[in-house]
Amino acid sequence: MVLGELSGCMEVTEDVVSQSSPQLRAAGGSGNIILKTPKGTRDFNPKQMAIRENIFTTIISCFKRHGAVAIDTPVFERKEILLENYGEDSKLVYDLKDQGGELLSLRYDLTDFDIAGQYDPMIPDAECLKVMHEILSSLQFGDFLIRVNHRRILNGIFTVCGVSETKFESVCSTLDKLGKMTWEEVKNEMVKEKGISPETVDHIGEYVQLNGGLCLIEKLLHDPKLADSRLAMEGLQDMKLLFEYLTLFGIIDKISLDLSLARGLDYYCGVIYEAVLLHQQDGHLKESLRVGSVAAGGRYDGLVASFDPKGRKVPCVGVSIGVERIFAIIEQNTEEKIRTSETQVLVAAAQRNFLAGRMKLISELWDAGIKAEMFYKKNPKLLNQLQYCEETGIPLVAIIGQQELSEGVVRLRDVTTRKEIIVPKDKLIEEIKRRLEK
Amino acid sequence: MVLGELSGCMEVTEDVVSQSSPQLRAAGGSGNIILKTPKGTRDFNPKQMAIRENIFTTIISCFKRHGAVAIDTPVFERKEILLENYGEDSKLVYDLKDQGGELLSLRYDLTDFDIAGQYDPMIPDAECLKVMHEILSSLQFGDFLIRVNHRRILNGIFTVCGVSETKFESVCSTLDKLGKMTWEEVKNEMVKEKGISPETVDHIGEYVQLNGGLCLIEKLLHDPKLADSRLAMEGLQDMKLLFEYLTLFGIIDKISLDLSLARGLDYYCGVIYEAVLLHQQDGHLKESLRVGSVAAGGRYDGLVASFDPKGRKVPCVGVSIGVERIFAIIEQNTEEKIRTSETQVLVAAAQRNFLAGRMKLISELWDAGIKAEMFYKKNPKLLNQLQYCEETGIPLVAIIGQQELSEGVVRLRDVTTRKEIIVPKDKLIEEIKRRLEK
Repeated sequence: MVLGELSGCMEVTEDVVSQSSPQLRAAGGSGNIILKTPKGTRDFNPKQMAIRENIFTTIISCFKRHGAVAIDTPVFERKEILLENYGEDSKLVYDLKDQGGELLSLRYDLTDFDIAGQYDPMIPDAECLKVMHEILSSLQFGDFLIRVNHRRILNGIFTVCGVSETKFESVCSTLDKLGKMTWEEVKNEMVKEKGISPETVDHIGEYVQLNGGLCLIEKLLHDPKLADSRLAMEGLQDMKLLFEYLTLFGIIDKISLDLSLARGLDYYCGVIYEAVLLHQQDGHLKESLRVGSVAAGGRYDGLVASFDPKGRKVPCVGVSIGVERIFAIIEQNTEEKIRTSETQVLVAAAQRNFLAGRMKLISELWDAGIKAEMFYKKNPKLLNQLQYCEETGIPLVAIIGQQELSEGVVRLRDVTTRKEIIVPKDKLIEEIKRRLEK
Repeated sequence: MVLGELSGCMEVTEDVVSQSSPQLRAAGGSGNIILKTPKGTRDFNPKQMAIRENIFTTIISCFKRHGAVAIDTPVFERKEILLENYGEDSKLVYDLKDQGGELLSLRYDLTDFDIAGQYDPMIPDAECLKVMHEILSSLQFGDFLIRVNHRRILNGIFTVCGVSETKFESVCSTLDKLGKMTWEEVKNEMVKEKGISPETVDHIGEYVQLNGGLCLIEKLLHDPKLADSRLAMEGLQDMKLLFEYLTLFGIIDKISLDLSLARGLDYYCGVIYEAVLLHQQDGHLKESLRVGSVAAGGRYDGLVASFDPKGRKVPCVGVSIGVERIFAIIEQNTEEKIRTSETQVLVAAAQRNFLAGRMKLISELWDAGIKAEMFYKKNPKLLNQLQYCEETGIPLVAIIGQQELSEGVVRLRDVTTRKEIIVPKDKLIEEIKRRLEK
């Protein structure tokens, strides 16, 4: 009940927003206030929060299972920092300006899991993919595919196709649009905007349409053209090792090497990956283009060094979970009623004038760590109290009345079965905990 | 280990900040980046995050114990909304400006617990104080006192002392500075800035120095001057009822009616309260002025109506927990080493060439929901693996080697006792869970 009505009154405010502006003027005396959340923000109601909490719990418990320690950094960052590292994607950040005049931007890569440090190749990279797989599996929103690629393989392909090294990143960020754009449009942008010859682009096109598993890796390792590129060969060796490790982790079935995967951010230097949802379409699993990737990441060995005055390298690999996209999908698929509070017991009165008794009893339950509510009325009707439990899913009701008080007992009601038993007051907490353990 | 080195490298960045600016230039090739967090923000390292997580867990579990449902609103709000309601305190908010040109301000009243709705007097108010009491008790950072007052009592006092109603709020916000300012300074501001006559201020002074329990309430209920003020009498009747309820909740010992308590925010209309920490000083408990209030709140019945076009009233009472202040205090008092990760088992190898074996074993543990880590090296030394557990407080080590592999067993080591037992591989998870339950 606590805060419940507040969400109720928030629904009122939502009505308000949907009304025409003259009605938006507040009649409450405190001037003319238009009700809306700031641009680019939203409120979450209790049902949405219950869904979000479940998502965050799933993600965080997975992170902890993998030994993660948490750090927290401001949600906004100095714009130059982001410009340095988001490359062309920095067009997509949301800028703020503080009184100090620093240019600030909101980071969009929250809920990250990163492994930093000098280690043997592909072991941390494999764990990041295992983390991604565990989270997407336990969120249970259907089948998914994790695409992986390697910046060195891409750069190797660009080299053997005749792209000059200076254009790697800019070609990459155009290739990254494949999926949102057709290959024709991508080709067009590469030729017109990035100044790549049509032949080179066609040549790139032959490679980037390839995807598969270990056998594709083997095939590419023996590709005569790619053999000329040290970069490509290094990337493919990494990829072979990674696939070995992913087999040991038992998640290889959801992994696919996809040479068209580019990832926009400039700072990636090694393995890159993204997860997409799949759905049944005429008997085949197809990618749900509507949502895009729900998790992504990669290796960024150079980033930390760029912040260190001595340029000390701290190799990093990480994965980011697209919480907002995941929330949108799960919210859509959630029809059934979900509880918005975790209340275990309602402390109710059978007759009038038991407020004092209810207050004493409920504070004993609270102090015993039991989640309990009571009506904030002096004399609530028993029927209303029982109905409230059935509507909100509270499993137990502790009922006191004249008889109970005189006999030093409490009536404990199971809301689903509607069965009631008499419990001595000093055994009540024990009995409640016993029932809740089931 | 995961993310651990990242915090390690964050320590590097902290060093950097402490160095002189020429050295601040990044040598890592990506231009000249000065390392600092945006003005008014900070990073939190893993130790700090462990402390913060503990604080939030305490607060949120208390909210849930009281049946709270969560809602989430943007951390920044349209400035006009805050200006409307923070009164003179709106000088204290942090403004942002978004691209759309909306004036935005960061709310500072996060971590709120509110009860909204039309109920019998003082019942929700009492629960808010119980929530405050439970949270401050379970955070165990020493003795505290909860001061309560009532806007109607204050306004009644102002009336009988001869303050005109139009000046109530502005006199209130000056009175609120008492504690930070001496009474002389407060008096000075009331006379010079708020234009109250010195006699009136002295008269107010006689009242606002009073504090105590039920007997003070009784005394004031029979105060001949206050008797002329309907407001004061209503407020005192509320206060009497509230103290009854707080006695039933068993928390009255920490509560004191303090007529000098004013609270800055204009929208409070009824009961107001704030919690302060106490410390021993020459045998007496004194308020720790250094920190100020660690939790506060009150009743604001008019606020929701001011947003509703029909001016419908949704009475509200709430409490806000001063998380940042609480964090600062607890961080200061935390000397002993606290674990920053929750890892339960390290999967270790006794000899070389057991990477594949460790990977298979650890993914079985992960899939069984066990928090496990392994070294990201192909051939880590057993001694280093055991030392890592002792340093980081990981309780168990699962060791595999040639002999274990051939016999289909795992060596399970208790890090504290250093005792090792041999467990059949198919019994390992069961045995680990059994030990962790203890």
